[in-house]
Amino acid sequence: MFEVCLLGCGGSLPLPERSLTALLASYNGKMILIDCGEGTQVSMRQIGWGFKAIEAICFTHYHADHIIGLPGILLTIGNSGRQEPLTLIGPPGLREVITGLLVIAPRLPFELHLIELPIEQTTALQLAGIDISILPVYHHVPCVAYRLEIKRGRKFLPERAKALQIPVNFWKSLQQGHAIRTDGTEYTPDMVLGPARNGIRLAYCTDTRPLPAIADFIRESDLFICEGMYGSEDKYENALENRHMLFREAAELAKVGQVRELWLTHFSPSMPNPSDYLTEATKIFPNTKIGFDRMITSLHFPEE
Amino acid sequence: MFEVCLLGCGGSLPLPERSLTALLASYNGKMILIDCGEGTQVSMRQIGWGFKAIEAICFTHYHADHIIGLPGILLTIGNSGRQEPLTLIGPPGLREVITGLLVIAPRLPFELHLIELPIEQTTALQLAGIDISILPVYHHVPCVAYRLEIKRGRKFLPERAKALQIPVNFWKSLQQGHAIRTDGTEYTPDMVLGPARNGIRLAYCTDTRPLPAIADFIRESDLFICEGMYGSEDKYENALENRHMLFREAAELAKVGQVRELWLTHFSPSMPNPSDYLTEATKIFPNTKIGFDRMITSLHFPEE
Repeated sequence: MFEVCLLGCGGSLPLPERSLTALLASYNGKMILIDCGEGTQVSMRQIGWGFKAIEAICFTHYHADHIIGLPGILLTIGNSGRQEPLTLIGPPGLREVITGLLVIAPRLPFELHLIELPIEQTTALQLAGIDISILPVYHHVPCVAYRLEIKRGRKFLPERAKALQIPVNFWKSLQQGHAIRTDGTEYTPDMVLGPARNGIRLAYCTDTRPLPAIADFIRESDLFICEGMYGSEDKYENALENRHMLFREAAELAKVGQVRELWLTHFSPSMPNPSDYLTEATKIFPNTKIGFDRMITSLHFPEE
Repeated sequence: MFEVCLLGCGGSLPLPERSLTALLASYNGKMILIDCGEGTQVSMRQIGWGFKAIEAICFTHYHADHIIGLPGILLTIGNSGRQEPLTLIGPPGLREVITGLLVIAPRLPFELHLIELPIEQTTALQLAGIDISILPVYHHVPCVAYRLEIKRGRKFLPERAKALQIPVNFWKSLQQGHAIRTDGTEYTPDMVLGPARNGIRLAYCTDTRPLPAIADFIRESDLFICEGMYGSEDKYENALENRHMLFREAAELAKVGQVRELWLTHFSPSMPNPSDYLTEATKIFPNTKIGFDRMITSLHFPEE
C-alpha cells in the first residue's frame, strides 16, 4: 500500500493554522519526503509515521519555505536512532545549500548522500522500491516536479504454466521476466504472464507556471498534487509575475494530463479561504479537492 | 510599558503543542527578540504584535532549536515592509552562522548589522531604549544570558527648583543631569532631583549549567526566565552531561539572585507535563511559574 500525506497546504510563510506545503509518501515501511519547510517536522510528528524510515528528502527548489526545515528534521531523524545513510535530492545548487544550512547541524549520526540533479534535464531513479521521475519546471530559481510510481509486474498465470507443462522450478525466473532455454526447449515470460498492468502514480508539482511538459509528466496519475497559489482570476498578473498558478491553470493541467484526482495546495497567505475558489477548478476538472494540513490517502493498484 | 512574551517553552525539538523557547520584549513600540527556533515566527504571528518593529534579534547560542527560524523570520520581516537595518547579536561564530543560513535568503530589503560578542566577556549595549547586558554561561558551545533593563531617571522636583529660585529655562538641563554655571552661581542636578529609582529588569537564561555569576547577573530582576530542562531530581546526570538545569537549580538561582518572579522554560521533549515537578522549584523559590507558549506579562516601574 502506498500512503500519501500532504503535510501542509501553505505557500511562502508558515501560518498558525496552515503548515507549509510538503509531501510524505510511505511504501513498504520506507518513506520519501518532498520539500521540508519551517514546521514540516511538527506536522510529521502529528501524523505519527515516525522519522527513522525516511529514505530520501527531495526538494523542488531552494526557497526558504521549501527547505528551511531541513537542519531541524535531520537532527530529529538522528534522535530517532537512524544510522543508515539518507539521500537528499534536488536541483542544481543542492551541495551549496546543504553546506550552508548544516553550519548549525554539523554532526549527524548518519551519512548524507547528495544527488544534485543535472540542469534542465529530466531524471529517473529508483529508491526504496519507488520509481522517481523528475521534470524541470519554470520558477524564478531552478525548480523541479516529482512523479513517484510503484510499478507493477505482469500477473503470473500458473494454470497456463501447468497446461504448458513448464517445470515448477522455472516458474519464478519466468515470473521475473527471464527466458529459459533447456534441452532444446525455450520457455519465455510471455508464455506464462498476463497483460501489462498499471501501477500507482503520484505527481507533485509546485512553484511553477503551467507548462505543456507538466501535462505529459503527470499523465494518468492516480493523484496529482499541484500548487494553486491563487484562486481568483483577478490574480493572473500575480501568478505571471511570481511564476505560480491559478486554480484554473492547475485544473487545466489535471484535465489535459487525464489524472484521476487533483489536490490543490501551496495557497497564498493572502487567501484565507481557498475553498471560496474551488469552482474555478471544478468547472474544468471536477475531481479537484482543496488541500489541507495532513490530508491523507492510500493509493492502491487498480482492481483487475 | 515593557511587555514580555515567552513565545514557546520547549527545548531541543518543536512539538505540536509546544513551540521552541524564545522571548519577545516590546518597549515604546520597538521589539527585541531573543532566540528564534523553528516555528518562532508562527508563535509571533499568533500574538499579533507584528514583525516590522523588531529592532534586534539576539541569540543565546547556535544550536538549531535557537536559530533555525532566522532565515524565515527575516523574509517575513522583509514582507512586513521593513527597510531599516536590523541588528543581530550573538556569541562568537555569528558571522559564520548567518552566512551559512542566508544561503536561502540571499536578498533582504534591509541591511543586517551584526554584533558578534567577544569571547568570554560580559558586554553591555543599548538598543531601542533598552539596556542590554550579556553574560557568558556554560553550555557545550559558546552561549550567553541576556538582561534587558529599562533604566529610570531620578524624579525632577519642581517645588524644590522653585524654592531655590532656579530659572525655569535651566530645569530641563538639570533634569537631564547637566550642571549649569551662570553669573557665578552653580546649579547642580542634585539640587532638583529626587533619589535614585529602580527601573525594570528582565533576565533570560537558557542552555547552561547554573553558575554563581548568573545569580549576580539576574540580581533583583522583576522577572527571571530560566531554563528548566528537567523537573525530576532523577535527571541530575542528564543535566550535568547535557549542560542544562533541573527545576531546583533554576529556583536556587532565583532565590540567591533575589528576583521577584521566575518562569521556567525550555522543557525537555521527554517531560510531557512540566507542572508535575513545579514543587521541586516552589519549595525553594515560591514565586515560580511553569512557562507555556505565548505567556505574556507587562512589567511596570515600581510605584513610589
